[in-house]
Amino acid sequence: MGPVLIALDWGTSSLRGFLMEAGGSVLEQRGSPHGITNLPEPGTAGFDAAFEALCGPWLERWPGLPVVAGGMVGSAQGWRKAPYAECPADARQLAAAAVPVEARRGTRILIAPGVVSRPAGAAPDVIRGEEIQIAGALLLHPELATGSHFLMPGTHSKWAEVREGRITGFRTYMTGELFAVLSRHSLLGRLMTEAAAEPDMAQAAFARGVAMARAAQPGELAHHLFAARTLGLTGELPGAALKDFLSGLLIGHEVLGGLGAAGAGDVPLVLIGEEELCRRYAGVLRTFGRTPDRLLGNTAPPGLFHFATAAGLLAPPQEASR
Amino acid sequence: MGPVLIALDWGTSSLRGFLMEAGGSVLEQRGSPHGITNLPEPGTAGFDAAFEALCGPWLERWPGLPVVAGGMVGSAQGWRKAPYAECPADARQLAAAAVPVEARRGTRILIAPGVVSRPAGAAPDVIRGEEIQIAGALLLHPELATGSHFLMPGTHSKWAEVREGRITGFRTYMTGELFAVLSRHSLLGRLMTEAAAEPDMAQAAFARGVAMARAAQPGELAHHLFAARTLGLTGELPGAALKDFLSGLLIGHEVLGGLGAAGAGDVPLVLIGEEELCRRYAGVLRTFGRTPDRLLGNTAPPGLFHFATAAGLLAPPQEASR
Repeated sequence: MGPVLIALDWGTSSLRGFLMEAGGSVLEQRGSPHGITNLPEPGTAGFDAAFEALCGPWLERWPGLPVVAGGMVGSAQGWRKAPYAECPADARQLAAAAVPVEARRGTRILIAPGVVSRPAGAAPDVIRGEEIQIAGALLLHPELATGSHFLMPGTHSKWAEVREGRITGFRTYMTGELFAVLSRHSLLGRLMTEAAAEPDMAQAAFARGVAMARAAQPGELAHHLFAARTLGLTGELPGAALKDFLSGLLIGHEVLGGLGAAGAGDVPLVLIGEEELCRRYAGVLRTFGRTPDRLLGNTAPPGLFHFATAAGLLAPPQEASR
Repeated sequence: MGPVLIALDWGTSSLRGFLMEAGGSVLEQRGSPHGITNLPEPGTAGFDAAFEALCGPWLERWPGLPVVAGGMVGSAQGWRKAPYAECPADARQLAAAAVPVEARRGTRILIAPGVVSRPAGAAPDVIRGEEIQIAGALLLHPELATGSHFLMPGTHSKWAEVREGRITGFRTYMTGELFAVLSRHSLLGRLMTEAAAEPDMAQAAFARGVAMARAAQPGELAHHLFAARTLGLTGELPGAALKDFLSGLLIGHEVLGGLGAAGAGDVPLVLIGEEELCRRYAGVLRTFGRTPDRLLGNTAPPGLFHFATAAGLLAPPQEASR
């Protein structure tokens, strides 16, 4: 059967397009570096140009294909702002809050919203793109819909809770960004080297950071971070291993906080994200006594497919005998 | 009586010189912007030039005056590295670990060491400059020597413990640097404004950050930090107040951690540092139920005097009848 959907995973630093068929599989995939901060020209025209370059060939061949997009393309810095859907949210809530934008060639692109969580007595939190990842995981593994926790590591790691097929809450941990800004812009970077440490040393330094985090009392991160300098000053760690220590420390603190907030491990814990990073987190989770149930890769394609279905953009499955 | 000592408080961004008399009072004070990262010329010659510009007039008038220096001038980036004295350390240990450097005019300058703490089973920690501040506080308030805690807020806040006149341990919290790098180089700065918030709003936002920190579970700072973005995204706080929120949050986390590690409040807690910052910390401490016993300003002059005395550089006090 032919394609039924073009799905765009449009983030900050890259644009990925998936040509999908009625069963939800990817027929063809195209990518470009034109994330929303790297468009071929400024302004709205830049989004259109990136879209045309990526999807033009597909739409020339299959005009009228529905197109959906998720990720930062729906943020205030995106093509069109798709305001946040409120928690609790499932694919239908996402569809209901989606906003269309029209490309110059007349194609209508339906942009998925992010989700905002407003827990009582605490600060709000937001996700944008991760709701699509979760929708994809639920499409691939429907048994997770009853109750599950998702951990999506990254620059801004997200820990989300799903109950009865809906995202009921989530917490952001700025782990990746803390690592980046502290390494590049703080005194901690001064003793670090570009060169990688020997694998054994890197692993030991990472584990040392995790161990320090495991025992952390409330309020101690700002103190622990200084160890990424003093362990280098005193020669206890070589400069090349300080970044590994810092990584273990920050991921350890995140896992300590995330598991503490998530509560007892009676629902599946699923990691979604880049493979090496998810493996690293899985190791830390095991150190904390919590083995993740699944590691999933990029679930944006099934997530966008799930979103497009909920938005009524896809015809019901045809009977095989027609 | 004439001067008996030139004391130099030589930090990263400024150089302050104090001409002192036998009772420890400051007769005259001179300052320059020639901190160790801002010397008038590169290399060792730059230190000499800065020294000569500041102290030349004094030494022309009183040749042979002893000269001591403390602060980052003794670091690896300083005029001469004065390696760390080990905990526990009092003024005599500082004197024993001090290193001399000779100026071009032949004057010998005795540079105070920093102090390193190596607690069992934890990462090492270091101070450089704060040991002089503490020595000054103990000279001014000898009753603190039996047992006291010192809190010296700043880019790298220091919490130190003194027992029987000696620094027995300390913890660094990178609070000020976290605030700076997150405001300037992370996504958190994106919604902040240069303009100050209205005082009531700034105070309320600061208090909100402190309150969030007070309730922090272990590992939660990376999550709390994201509220400095989401509170702006949702309009709960104006952009101008996000920096106040972030400040309250980071100081609150530090106080939570510092008080937790310091234990019960049965010894005096003394703040040393810039007045407005110390008042801000005192307010946060009171919110946590711990009222500081004293707020002291820059105690480097008496601290350097105490160090010089311990180093044997000052004649014993003359009898009044001579």
